[in-house]
Amino acid sequence: MSDNELKAIKVPEPSLRRLPWYLSNVKLLKKKGEHYVSSTQISKETNIDASQIAKDLSYVNISGRTRVGYEVDELIAVLEDFLGFTNEHRAFLFGVGSLGGALLRDTGLNHFGLKIVAAFDVNPELIGQAINGIPIFHSDDFQKKMEEYDVNIGVLTVPIEIAQDITDKMVEGGIKAVWNFTPFRIRVPENIVVQNTSLYAHLAVMFNRLNFNRSSK
Amino acid sequence: MSDNELKAIKVPEPSLRRLPWYLSNVKLLKKKGEHYVSSTQISKETNIDASQIAKDLSYVNISGRTRVGYEVDELIAVLEDFLGFTNEHRAFLFGVGSLGGALLRDTGLNHFGLKIVAAFDVNPELIGQAINGIPIFHSDDFQKKMEEYDVNIGVLTVPIEIAQDITDKMVEGGIKAVWNFTPFRIRVPENIVVQNTSLYAHLAVMFNRLNFNRSSK
Repeated sequence: MSDNELKAIKVPEPSLRRLPWYLSNVKLLKKKGEHYVSSTQISKETNIDASQIAKDLSYVNISGRTRVGYEVDELIAVLEDFLGFTNEHRAFLFGVGSLGGALLRDTGLNHFGLKIVAAFDVNPELIGQAINGIPIFHSDDFQKKMEEYDVNIGVLTVPIEIAQDITDKMVEGGIKAVWNFTPFRIRVPENIVVQNTSLYAHLAVMFNRLNFNRSSK
Repeated sequence: MSDNELKAIKVPEPSLRRLPWYLSNVKLLKKKGEHYVSSTQISKETNIDASQIAKDLSYVNISGRTRVGYEVDELIAVLEDFLGFTNEHRAFLFGVGSLGGALLRDTGLNHFGLKIVAAFDVNPELIGQAINGIPIFHSDDFQKKMEEYDVNIGVLTVPIEIAQDITDKMVEGGIKAVWNFTPFRIRVPENIVVQNTSLYAHLAVMFNRLNFNRSSK
């Protein structure tokens, strides 16, 4: 299945978030020497209802065989393609601070289809440098670089004070999706995709649950 | 409000995830010189219903004044404390690969209450080294180090093949909360907290939405 074919499907977010779980599970089963896998088997491994798994997989263009289930190699290939991990999606990163620098160094993102091709900052000590082979330009050069590189994703790792301003500039410059790592809730026009990954919000949930468990002993 | 006081409250996860948005917004308003802030004002800035904001803030032990709203400094202090950002939560990190190494380098987590005090791996080239001042030990030394350090959070950044195995060892060793960065759905006993931060799942959602928008033009 190509990008072209999945164009009409807006898969519900919870399903999209579960599909990578199935993918990693099936990859593991493949390593263990399995050739076929059923929803029931994935269910046992992931603690997710088999009916839910079958429903999630129904968005993906693959059909299992009665009794034996899905062919492992095919399921992996179809899932990776469906999730966009086999395409190269080029991105700019904005804000080479601690987290931004860390993301530039994380080569894992490459294997899941995201290629950060350049970064922007205003710190004179960073401009002209490169991290992990990724060049760092002055933020003022963003528009110019948009013409040079074929990019439609922006990774946002700037301080909260400028999160909205940089987002506005990105959108003006032609960025179509913002991966927001700041704890700031950015506003964008309706046709722009935003994905929020707030590590701090996840920490807050973890701390609260830890406290709750500790006290309810 | 201390950890002790919030012990009985299990705040719904969606509320916990929104509270850091309000916090960063209020911090920004403070920088702009504001002394008071109302739910309506936060609502305008974040595009979240004022009634929802008031409800979320009702979990936090703070009350606004009619007409003027919440006192900015107090709201920031109470939110940071409530979310656990002012406490030091000590953590071990498991798996010093690309993402693990990146997280060790991200000093931002410190400002939100997470202090990674040691890391574990089996790579002989890493053991005995330190990243950002954080020592890296052999995974076999985990139990011994649990006695040495006062830790109850484990950050999981290992390859998926060993994600479950390392999780089991963590829990056996006394870890109470696992921050899971792998795309693998780990299983834990009921009393153990798990917070999943799958960058790859977020990428999948972003890619799908991008494709959908592109095709629906």
